[in-house]
Amino acid sequence: MSDTKNAEHTRDRHIPPVWAFEFHGHRCPFMPIGYRMGVLAMKALGVEHEADHGFFVFPELGEGHPQTCMMDGLQAATGATYGKVLIEKQFYGKLAATFYHPKHGAVRYALKPDFVDEMGKHEFFSYRKRGVEPSQIPAAVTDDLIAWVAKQPDEALFKVEPRPDFVFTPTKGSFNKALCSVCGEYVFERYLRQKDGKPVCIPCSGYGK
Amino acid sequence: MSDTKNAEHTRDRHIPPVWAFEFHGHRCPFMPIGYRMGVLAMKALGVEHEADHGFFVFPELGEGHPQTCMMDGLQAATGATYGKVLIEKQFYGKLAATFYHPKHGAVRYALKPDFVDEMGKHEFFSYRKRGVEPSQIPAAVTDDLIAWVAKQPDEALFKVEPRPDFVFTPTKGSFNKALCSVCGEYVFERYLRQKDGKPVCIPCSGYGK
Repeated sequence: MSDTKNAEHTRDRHIPPVWAFEFHGHRCPFMPIGYRMGVLAMKALGVEHEADHGFFVFPELGEGHPQTCMMDGLQAATGATYGKVLIEKQFYGKLAATFYHPKHGAVRYALKPDFVDEMGKHEFFSYRKRGVEPSQIPAAVTDDLIAWVAKQPDEALFKVEPRPDFVFTPTKGSFNKALCSVCGEYVFERYLRQKDGKPVCIPCSGYGK
Repeated sequence: MSDTKNAEHTRDRHIPPVWAFEFHGHRCPFMPIGYRMGVLAMKALGVEHEADHGFFVFPELGEGHPQTCMMDGLQAATGATYGKVLIEKQFYGKLAATFYHPKHGAVRYALKPDFVDEMGKHEFFSYRKRGVEPSQIPAAVTDDLIAWVAKQPDEALFKVEPRPDFVFTPTKGSFNKALCSVCGEYVFERYLRQKDGKPVCIPCSGYGK
């Protein structure tokens, strides 16, 4: 299976490589949709997979709702990963994301409601709505939906809007750190607090934040 | 190079597979440290790479400081990904994480200050502190540090604490959604707001959140 799936990725760069599914942990339609959104947004802005810390993705998804798997596809496609502090949910509960590069500007991609409605008719969702986890849904059901999505043209899936006025200033970083005087662990300076005249970490401070 | 690196992963499961570096975007010591922390925590709790939505990681890192790359290693090792809403920064600025599975309990791993100090003497950090991005640091310098870290025993890196009292209740999910009456895009129900008697999304509401 791996070889076939990698061959699909080689033929069509919008289809995630096998490692992206391995990273994600299960097969589902949303990781590939996010991957495709990421690839298209990168093309639209003229940027490459981000090696370091220069490209930002602001997904409008939140928590307590489905389809957030899109964000693993976004991470895999763009290199704007959570670990590099380049992706940040906006908690709007919307199937959309804005992509921003300081030298290339910003563009917003959103899933079209008609596409979401059509996709929602597939058997995959009857399992999900009964609480069946993605890895437990019959592979044929999942793969059928992934293949159906892959066949839809980009314009059927995505509403695209340039965002010429989008601004974002990354948090300035510092390497400074000190030991917490209570637990003895390192704390980066911006998160150090003071208690009884001594430097402490937030958990030892009891301040909560 | 890929084959050698994959061979290393096959010999020692604490060393990330090549795809984890591809996901991350550059070679650095922190993604592998997070990967190793994740693998050890999974072993300690007796859990496997999470396919679906049942295993949670709470890194104590924040923003505006280095070494957050650890979290990409945590995602890759555990399957507790940002897209599956299973990983959440605590913004304490600490090099630590708590791992939680409802059926297996919780454990906290933290980097030991002595290890951080020793590691900090390597040439890699003189580049980083001058603002050189990881992908631009000479490969020999980076690989030397990655190899040095891989040679250190687990006990040199990690302080480990069971957290028997740790509790966490995942946000309850719902598939309900409705169209925003202004922009016409779908919004998951918990993020719908009301304005002038009509359902709207947060951006169209102007409420900010």
